[in-house]
Amino acid sequence: MTDNAPDYGRAFALWRAAAPDWAAYTHHAFVEGLRRGDLPRERFLHYLRQDYLFLIHFGRAWALAAAKADDLAEMQAAAATVHGLTHHEMPLHVAICARAGIDAATLEATVEAPANLAYTRYVLEAGYSGDFLDLIAALAPCVLGYGEIGHRLAGTDGPYAEWIATYAGPEYQAICHNVGALIDKALARRLGTGWDALPRHATLSRHFATATRLEVGFWDMALSGN
Amino acid sequence: MTDNAPDYGRAFALWRAAAPDWAAYTHHAFVEGLRRGDLPRERFLHYLRQDYLFLIHFGRAWALAAAKADDLAEMQAAAATVHGLTHHEMPLHVAICARAGIDAATLEATVEAPANLAYTRYVLEAGYSGDFLDLIAALAPCVLGYGEIGHRLAGTDGPYAEWIATYAGPEYQAICHNVGALIDKALARRLGTGWDALPRHATLSRHFATATRLEVGFWDMALSGN
Amino acid sequence: MTDNAPDYGRAFALWRAAAPDWAAYTHHAFVEGLRRGDLPRERFLHYLRQDYLFLIHFGRAWALAAAKADDLAEMQAAAATVHGLTHHEMPLHVAICARAGIDAATLEATVEAPANLAYTRYVLEAGYSGDFLDLIAALAPCVLGYGEIGHRLAGTDGPYAEWIATYAGPEYQAICHNVGALIDKALARRLGTGWDALPRHATLSRHFATATRLEVGFWDMALSGN
Amino acid sequence: MTDNAPDYGRAFALWRAAAPDWAAYTHHAFVEGLRRGDLPRERFLHYLRQDYLFLIHFGRAWALAAAKADDLAEMQAAAATVHGLTHHEMPLHVAICARAGIDAATLEATVEAPANLAYTRYVLEAGYSGDFLDLIAALAPCVLGYGEIGHRLAGTDGPYAEWIATYAGPEYQAICHNVGALIDKALARRLGTGWDALPRHATLSRHFATATRLEVGFWDMALSGN
Repeated sequence: MTDNAPDYGRAFALWRAAAPDWAAYTHHAFVEGLRRGDLPRERFLHYLRQDYLFLIHFGRAWALAAAKADDLAEMQAAAATVHGLTHHEMPLHVAICARAGIDAATLEATVEAPANLAYTRYVLEAGYSGDFLDLIAALAPCVLGYGEIGHRLAGTDGPYAEWIATYAGPEYQAICHNVGALIDKALARRLGTGWDALPRHATLSRHFATATRLEVGFWDMALSGN
Repeated sequence: MTDNAPDYGRAFALWRAAAPDWAAYTHHAFVEGLRRGDLPRERFLHYLRQDYLFLIHFGRAWALAAAKADDLAEMQAAAATVHGLTHHEMPLHVAICARAGIDAATLEATVEAPANLAYTRYVLEAGYSGDFLDLIAALAPCVLGYGEIGHRLAGTDGPYAEWIATYAGPEYQAICHNVGALIDKALARRLGTGWDALPRHATLSRHFATATRLEVGFWDMALSGN
Repeated sequence: MTDNAPDYGRAFALWRAAAPDWAAYTHHAFVEGLRRGDLPRERFLHYLRQDYLFLIHFGRAWALAAAKADDLAEMQAAAATVHGLTHHEMPLHVAICARAGIDAATLEATVEAPANLAYTRYVLEAGYSGDFLDLIAALAPCVLGYGEIGHRLAGTDGPYAEWIATYAGPEYQAICHNVGALIDKALARRLGTGWDALPRHATLSRHFATATRLEVGFWDMALSGN
Repeated sequence: MTDNAPDYGRAFALWRAAAPDWAAYTHHAFVEGLRRGDLPRERFLHYLRQDYLFLIHFGRAWALAAAKADDLAEMQAAAATVHGLTHHEMPLHVAICARAGIDAATLEATVEAPANLAYTRYVLEAGYSGDFLDLIAALAPCVLGYGEIGHRLAGTDGPYAEWIATYAGPEYQAICHNVGALIDKALARRLGTGWDALPRHATLSRHFATATRLEVGFWDMALSGN
């Protein structure tokens, strides 16, 4: 993959390069549909409903990261993300859905698609069974992949311009840079600066790759409606 | 569903009746293929490879149950299951695969199918985030569903007679009765004998139903090869 | 104990009445020293140093509660507490220590006293091994006990007036009412309104009682310097 | 500390040398009382009662290690330890207590001493919040310290000869060698052979040192009766 990926740090660059499905994720037909604007509205709404459930588990996973943090700085970073998710992103998400005619009760009643379930439980379980590093390696593809998609699609007009602008915007891009820096610092703090030569690196890279594969499954589900 | 299900206790009877996908799981085309003997061999081998990875995570989940047990009896029951899985079932599984021409290295190198991943991580995460009850409710459909399938198919001849005999046999049926009793006792110990009237019961029943749904996904995967 | 305890809800009233060490905790010699103003300054500073480490683990425990929450409201309540702890209480704590001549490096270098370790790890482990209810039952004595102490000592002058005012003040008292309501709602949501008749109630009450016992140990440690 | 410690592997040698309280633990007055035979019987019985509760949590911690294992070999090793603890050591412990006039009901009714609680919850929480390595580093001082004590006291006669023989015997010493090898292999598998130069090593060494400190507290408790 030749590319001009955004610079979210060293771990991101290495893990991304080692994830076989990275391009399939970030250039998925669903994403291209958002870019071209020809993604059927019902597919987008299906995605929003499943994404609501996803965000709840994603918030839980970041809360777990705060519980597993090693120092106050890591805890504050993870806690700020949870707070942002639960008090800003999720209410915003609810509002977008409401405008689209999906009320809160419908959102709550959504049945989790298997692809959704696979992804969120994989991330949470990696975190519970492993440590802070396992967890953030599994969390990274979502945070940073959306950042890369936003970065690439920045300025795109059309029916999905608002969605694109959210992830292309300076606020979300700053989050990506912060998360990338948090990961690099967490790695160096535990494994030294030569962490990419350790077997541990391969395990973390596998978490990133598996989560990336599950992101592809999430887009597939969004597109197919299953 | 009218049926003569085996009697694995009160919780099993209630949860089973409330799981919309129970028949789809226990009468799945894959199971019928085992019964009629016309399941293509390659599908069975694909299943065995994925099941090997499944059993590792299943063993981990039972180990977690031992860690989350409330008294020595619960701990011993869960620990005995882990011991049985790691020291008997899994070596046996490796032996069956070897006879089928799948060596240990191939088994280890198997890439987890999304349906496999979804199921195992769902169970483990339910256990980590919840307590002993959440965990065994999510574990129950696998243990007891295979027992019910074995019970129904008992005495069936053909290419899959050995597989069927394993789950139909008195040893596995005894495990099912013990696990059913463990669940009923664990429920009464924590929630009293009127547990089926509590909201908690609905949550546990949902874990059972979701795990059942993911069992269907596992058979689908085994049959389709994806 | 005859008393006019603040009304932090039904669970608090029941668990408090069943905790043998509640009076020993809330009327501890350390607390009386704060009230009378004759607690030696060095004892207070020792307490502050250990409390800094305590707050880190306490914040981690609330983060775990957010990870184990069942719905968005529970998650938001727990996440708001983590955010408050990491972004307000803890920086404030650091500032108070700084004014008292304890710099951040000294705080970080503090060796955890066994009584501190016993308390924080008990709470976290109760949360990891159990569910949301186990965790908040173990968290409650700290949050609500400080509220009750503040409530009783409100208006007290002297060298520890600032500490007392923090916990007596409307902001902290509101937190206590919210946490009490969160607990009652979480109980009813899972166990129905008759939860106090279930065996589960005894287990939760035991968590509350053990955490209360460990609070006494914490004050003992603060007073003795060990 | 100059010594002829048993050779339980590389990690043990390094962590032991870095634990300030190792000698205070392995040469504790309680241990010397066992060696000289003048430890008051009632102190020993108090120890046995608390140790019963300790073993339950210790078994739970090894079960958690099985849940957090990375491969089948690690899982089998941890599961075998759980099985041994729950099906052999603990029934044996109950039998020894019974002979000493402490029946099962009394054992079950024992109130956990704070020093006991501090130790067991520290180990479990280190395991839940961290990964397999964090857990076994915190578990190591108990397993291997008792091995070293047994090794040093081997052949000692007197009222505590049976206790000493248990830990001095070839069966327990074999367990120590296996656990030492498990730790070294787990470290190399994750961190490469140069693991002792990584920051991670310092964290693991700290877990070992803290658990050792808490072992001293356990003996202190046993001796003082508090």
